[in-house]
Amino acid sequence: MNFTLHVTDGRARAATLELAHGSIPTPIFMPVGTQASVKALDHTDLLEHIDAPIILGNTYHLYLRPGDENIAKLGGLHGFTKFPRNFLTDSGGFQAFSLNTNTKHSEEGIIFKSHIDGSKHLFTPEKVLEIEYNLNSDIMMVLDDLVGLPAPRERIKESIERTTRWAERSLLFHQAQKEQGKALTNHLFAIVQGGTDVEFREISSKALVGLGEFDGFAIGGLAVGEPNEEMYATLEYTTPWLPKHKPRYLMGVGTPEDIIEAIDRGVDMFDCVMPTRNARNGTLFTHFGKLSIKSPRYKLDENPIDSECDCYTCKHHSRAYLNHLYRSGEFSYFRLASIHNLRYYLNLVRGAREAILSRTWAEYRRQFYAKRGADEA
Amino acid sequence: MNFTLHVTDGRARAATLELAHGSIPTPIFMPVGTQASVKALDHTDLLEHIDAPIILGNTYHLYLRPGDENIAKLGGLHGFTKFPRNFLTDSGGFQAFSLNTNTKHSEEGIIFKSHIDGSKHLFTPEKVLEIEYNLNSDIMMVLDDLVGLPAPRERIKESIERTTRWAERSLLFHQAQKEQGKALTNHLFAIVQGGTDVEFREISSKALVGLGEFDGFAIGGLAVGEPNEEMYATLEYTTPWLPKHKPRYLMGVGTPEDIIEAIDRGVDMFDCVMPTRNARNGTLFTHFGKLSIKSPRYKLDENPIDSECDCYTCKHHSRAYLNHLYRSGEFSYFRLASIHNLRYYLNLVRGAREAILSRTWAEYRRQFYAKRGADEA
Repeated sequence: MNFTLHVTDGRARAATLELAHGSIPTPIFMPVGTQASVKALDHTDLLEHIDAPIILGNTYHLYLRPGDENIAKLGGLHGFTKFPRNFLTDSGGFQAFSLNTNTKHSEEGIIFKSHIDGSKHLFTPEKVLEIEYNLNSDIMMVLDDLVGLPAPRERIKESIERTTRWAERSLLFHQAQKEQGKALTNHLFAIVQGGTDVEFREISSKALVGLGEFDGFAIGGLAVGEPNEEMYATLEYTTPWLPKHKPRYLMGVGTPEDIIEAIDRGVDMFDCVMPTRNARNGTLFTHFGKLSIKSPRYKLDENPIDSECDCYTCKHHSRAYLNHLYRSGEFSYFRLASIHNLRYYLNLVRGAREAILSRTWAEYRRQFYAKRGADEA
Repeated sequence: MNFTLHVTDGRARAATLELAHGSIPTPIFMPVGTQASVKALDHTDLLEHIDAPIILGNTYHLYLRPGDENIAKLGGLHGFTKFPRNFLTDSGGFQAFSLNTNTKHSEEGIIFKSHIDGSKHLFTPEKVLEIEYNLNSDIMMVLDDLVGLPAPRERIKESIERTTRWAERSLLFHQAQKEQGKALTNHLFAIVQGGTDVEFREISSKALVGLGEFDGFAIGGLAVGEPNEEMYATLEYTTPWLPKHKPRYLMGVGTPEDIIEAIDRGVDMFDCVMPTRNARNGTLFTHFGKLSIKSPRYKLDENPIDSECDCYTCKHHSRAYLNHLYRSGEFSYFRLASIHNLRYYLNLVRGAREAILSRTWAEYRRQFYAKRGADEA
């Protein structure tokens, strides 16, 4: 893996990450395709309408259905979905948190109870990598021990210590594979934990960086219930502990504002279900703020969702038609709205990159806020 | 409106229908877009992936939501949906049947109770045309009095007599518009009723043809519960009563077999929710019969749905991926499956037309059946 840092403007970074399935200009937003499908879209939409260089898949979900070994037989995630660019796979650590009534942690790993049929499955750091090899992920996340916030200090301490031990097991297992000439294009990212605690984030970062050759570092355990300002502060004091010449990925974040603030604090990569989930719920992002397309005010509105957007949906369809499709429960709405919201997110980070490269990041960030007035665009 | 009959091979016909939004080669299948959207697709899908020259919209549904006057303000159905080709609109007669607990017939018209908010609305033959003018339909169906089968003879008799009186009112109303230079590109089709009764179909056909200048004739009141063979027999003795140089449209039909048999009996136009509804339920049509994509047998099947299909979905995606998307409840499945099934239907009628033009219709029909083995392709 090759990571070239081109420009740092303030703390904002523009870089290029080279992976087996194409290069990734950063900052980058990665659409989420939990079940090997970015909801309502297919690979052509992602290539032509979104132009996404990398998307996510989920280890836990794909292990259960259709099964990682089946995906391996079908050519890995690339062959299965026909999306020819890069995949990053989450490890299941987040599902252990989000589905927590059905999970049990031990030093060995996490026991999941399937949300599909109730069967039990043990995810160890090593097992997770075996699944990710089968998926042929370009970026594999290690299994981590995530804690919802607020949480007792003792539980957060346990989380970072276990996350470090699991990261070490992952690294050893992966290095053994590579020594056998296997998994050479499957890159491994560690995950920093520690809640919103300055000291814990420092300990976690140093411990993981100290383990040696991870290909990148994620910041996990944020956007799990804490106020925004605490998340921004946590990024502020965490990114300085991470290596300058490795990519930094903030997991599961967030609103356009969150992404701008995280880029400003030195983060390179993002993923979130927000653009696709909000699209399905009727909330569309624009340069001027959010709008709720189901509102009767759009019933006769012939304008596109966002007058400054170049997406397929804005080029072809009116707010009036989208309002009608939403209210009528038509499936076509979900695709058209998801195309718009994802394009908005990808354009946001593309614009950020251009600004950083031309050393006008502060102005880009200022303009971003200046345009946003009332939430209804 | 121009209707040119090119070739009659047996009783099968190949013709061209010229309308304001493009010419329609017949036999033709028309995808159903009840709420101004062919479910899960948009206009680009219909143009590029299906290549449909005409689709349906529904007068009753669009009158209620978003309102025909609103659609008129937004440029009619063409401006609203951005589908630039032709629209045919059903009159509400079928909804009076399919939603019959909420309707009440009188000589004046049909009172509907809205399925959305329970409000009451009177649809007269004249009111229906006013709605269809607002929608700017290229082909407008008259309001008819449809009867489910089996039904008492007396009720069927009442249905054809009322349908004739309503057709006459429609024709007078429409001619008055045209004399004022209005609605010149909105063409009017009458609907033959009469159940599966030879005598009633003859009476209904002759009465409607006798009224004068309808632009085409539909055969309604079939595929409403009667056995297939009775439907075929009814077509057999109804089409001879219809004018040779006007298009003949069999409403709401049907399976690929039904379409082949109806073409064989002189029908030119078809519509049905079957390709899109079956797609959503997991039933996909192929040259070799139907298949149920949710079956575990397709879990590792890297073949396309139909090895002889040229659709977008068959070009890009495997049965294995579609099986996974269906089982995972992913929205993208609905679009990919609908593209395939509609393309299959359009290719079926395109092939029929070519065969008729080259006077090999009997061979085409024979081949159609020869390929179909067991239902699981």
